[in-house]
Amino acid sequence: MVKYDTELDAIFTALAHPARRAMLARLGRGEATVGELARPLAMTLPAVTKHLKMLERARLISRGRDAQWRPCRLEAAPLATASGWIEAQRAIWEARLDRLEHYLHGIEKRGGKKR
Amino acid sequence: MVKYDTELDAIFTALAHPARRAMLARLGRGEATVGELARPLAMTLPAVTKHLKMLERARLISRGRDAQWRPCRLEAAPLATASGWIEAQRAIWEARLDRLEHYLHGIEKRGGKKR
Repeated sequence: MVKYDTELDAIFTALAHPARRAMLARLGRGEATVGELARPLAMTLPAVTKHLKMLERARLISRGRDAQWRPCRLEAAPLATASGWIEAQRAIWEARLDRLEHYLHGIEKRGGKKR
Repeated sequence: MVKYDTELDAIFTALAHPARRAMLARLGRGEATVGELARPLAMTLPAVTKHLKMLERARLISRGRDAQWRPCRLEAAPLATASGWIEAQRAIWEARLDRLEHYLHGIEKRGGKKR
């Protein structure tokens, strides 16, 4: 059975585009308006807004309530969720490699004794 | 300017689907054939093959050369690349929070002296 985790789906989808990663990297250095985010990306405001919506859906950013500016702010918790999933897989994989190495080392030692 | 990193695009796209994450989790515990990967997912072989191709494109898995079985194997390096990017963003964000806290603490201390 596949465990459907729509939270991870949304986070990894959001991280899969260079413009959205650039926006997150910018927001890591402080809040920014949509205009400020658009400038270095050489993108139209509607294109930027579309990317921001995907980041908001993944809860990677939140928007201020000020009607005129609505600055964007990075939310770090989903980043922790994403890297937590990846690190858990790496830990399982590394534990398996360690067991394999231990096993091969055991064979080698027993082989040595026979000689 | 957006720095286009097609490697990260492919990795995060591959991680954005629960079936592909389930396959990676399974492969973390050891090599598996396409049939073995398909079974717990209740998916057709062509559907599984499509997901495997996305994992291969992101270099998250490799396939054995044995023509009949071609077992799938997890490749951990792209997982490290993905979590490396995320952790770098978190580090920048946390350093900024630390500076902010330090700054606010300084204001508080100066305010205390004035009383």
